[in-house]
Amino acid sequence: MEPAAVASPPERLLLGPGPSPVHPRVMEAQARPMVGHLDPWFLEIADQVADMLRAVLRTDNQLTYAVSGTGSAGMETAVVNLVEPGDTVIVGVNGVFGGRIADTAQRAGADVVALEEPWGRIVPPERVASAVKAHPGAKLVALVHAETSTGAHQPLEEVGDLLRDSDTLLLVDAVTSLGGVPLEMDRWGIDVVYSGTQKCLSVPPGLSPISFSPRAEAAIDRRSSTVRSWYLDVSALRRYWGGERVYHHTAPISSVIGLHEGLRLVLEEGLETRIARHGEVGRLFQEHLEDRDAELLSQKGHRLPQLTAFALPGGVDEAPLRKRLLEEYGIEVGGGLGDFAGRAWRVGLMGEGATHANVDRFLAAFDELLEG
Amino acid sequence: MEPAAVASPPERLLLGPGPSPVHPRVMEAQARPMVGHLDPWFLEIADQVADMLRAVLRTDNQLTYAVSGTGSAGMETAVVNLVEPGDTVIVGVNGVFGGRIADTAQRAGADVVALEEPWGRIVPPERVASAVKAHPGAKLVALVHAETSTGAHQPLEEVGDLLRDSDTLLLVDAVTSLGGVPLEMDRWGIDVVYSGTQKCLSVPPGLSPISFSPRAEAAIDRRSSTVRSWYLDVSALRRYWGGERVYHHTAPISSVIGLHEGLRLVLEEGLETRIARHGEVGRLFQEHLEDRDAELLSQKGHRLPQLTAFALPGGVDEAPLRKRLLEEYGIEVGGGLGDFAGRAWRVGLMGEGATHANVDRFLAAFDELLEG
Repeated sequence: MEPAAVASPPERLLLGPGPSPVHPRVMEAQARPMVGHLDPWFLEIADQVADMLRAVLRTDNQLTYAVSGTGSAGMETAVVNLVEPGDTVIVGVNGVFGGRIADTAQRAGADVVALEEPWGRIVPPERVASAVKAHPGAKLVALVHAETSTGAHQPLEEVGDLLRDSDTLLLVDAVTSLGGVPLEMDRWGIDVVYSGTQKCLSVPPGLSPISFSPRAEAAIDRRSSTVRSWYLDVSALRRYWGGERVYHHTAPISSVIGLHEGLRLVLEEGLETRIARHGEVGRLFQEHLEDRDAELLSQKGHRLPQLTAFALPGGVDEAPLRKRLLEEYGIEVGGGLGDFAGRAWRVGLMGEGATHANVDRFLAAFDELLEG
Repeated sequence: MEPAAVASPPERLLLGPGPSPVHPRVMEAQARPMVGHLDPWFLEIADQVADMLRAVLRTDNQLTYAVSGTGSAGMETAVVNLVEPGDTVIVGVNGVFGGRIADTAQRAGADVVALEEPWGRIVPPERVASAVKAHPGAKLVALVHAETSTGAHQPLEEVGDLLRDSDTLLLVDAVTSLGGVPLEMDRWGIDVVYSGTQKCLSVPPGLSPISFSPRAEAAIDRRSSTVRSWYLDVSALRRYWGGERVYHHTAPISSVIGLHEGLRLVLEEGLETRIARHGEVGRLFQEHLEDRDAELLSQKGHRLPQLTAFALPGGVDEAPLRKRLLEEYGIEVGGGLGDFAGRAWRVGLMGEGATHANVDRFLAAFDELLEG
């Protein structure tokens, strides 16, 4: 066959639930000449990535690396390495991503206790406490820090305190939270965190930062059954990312170099400054939306600044408007998922995208579309 | 913490078992501005990637796409979607990668019948035939087309003929073969093929092309148990890569655009021309090695031209020499794995790397190192 024509992407302002806009320095880093995955130079870069991830995750955990897959691969890595058939896993389900953890835990053989809450609400820490009391031998409590389908911002600190002296581990989905709101892995007593690169870190999708506490590592070492996945088996992978450099699979070299540059940008800005920027821009945006009678769909007092789900004012059908926003204004936002499908938009002001100029550009387009 | 210094890769000639050298056009494609994974423009690019993969895999299979992970993720996708607990899986094990399939099938609950052969040998088709006869209800026969740990080139056509009218499916690991030696997925009756991007396609690692025959799809539809992996579950993924575009996980956008450009280069050269180039350059290289009393470790008559494992002449210790080759000459090759560790090198002349100039450059360095 004839080859396809060259792929020339249109210019887009990415204000959806991810990917977020990427700094040109990161794109340029992804284009650097190829090297081997066992090259001493690349192994040093992988070490630096792990160090910078520790700084951003606020952890000293040795077992910290980037999974060779997108955020969902990080989720699966966290779950399948800890869960053995018959384990009890308590999962907060208040949107798409909690449901996904529950599904994955079930596939790994867990007995899942789903703490369901209406979309947009958080899972109250008291409710988690009761569930832990009712299931004293539970292996894991799993919570989504930033529910990308609703914009809910889950409190974690009390849950961490609760589990600190128990045998139950705390697993946290930080795909959309990392770099956008405070996350204190060690101080809050979180045992496993995974994230994505294409949200508040502003790096293209393809890798999933992950970290396991010593307690989580010990639980993996105590397993009596083999992990059901070969690709995601941490016991083998830590021999590559750890000191021994034993070959497991070929790392996605260019993506790792891109993440390296993205983490450099995060640390140059400073993690606190970056989080403050997300907070300020996002809260202002949400005020502007409420001024326009758009209903914010996440629980008041527990709203993420970087991801806002809202119902369009006046019961407008969302899809045709969203199509026009993309085609006429070059702005991408997300539609509602699940309970919010058909009537909601999800706007991400994440990473490089979290600027006042982007809020203005979005609102100007939004106002024109609603008028006309 | 302070950010790490900028990542500036050293210049390397990549003649190991992968990654292979990448054309600058592909690196440039990976640096193009980010777009969304549900953007109509990107969905069209994903369709074009699937079409070009069909052309390269020589198949009409609808279910053809790129797994969001490296070759091993493709392997796991193929195995976990087909295998149900209790299924019998016949696996040829004549090197690292056959062993890896057996391991993964076991984790998926299979009863594995391993057809072990000494490293470097192929698995004789007659032996496969006997095994199929002995296990008439087997779900799968799995063979590695190009065993990257040894350089053995597995014959497949007879096995495909044998299984065509049975209920046993043929699964083929084509990670190192695709684009380097002939592979006729449909004509040979192969039901599942997975490959890697970083070998004879000369695209950075990060994606795994995969294709399922209608027979394999029907077997997936007939499953009575849920696939053990959420991330790799084809039933959900085909709703994204197929017509419906249902969100599953965020595709690694830049990598897909890089693969698009890499496949364009393959089709511009022409698949047959590319395969002929690999054959000619590799066979000449192997002659030169034999002239130097290096022992080729794969079975005569079944040698891959694109990947050559050989024992260094005179029983030289391989590691210090390989280190000097990298540091003094900037050339990367691979060391031996498993049975060949300590005494062998693996040289890949793959994709952009399969040139006479590279053979000359390697041999000049090799001669100097052996003298010195």
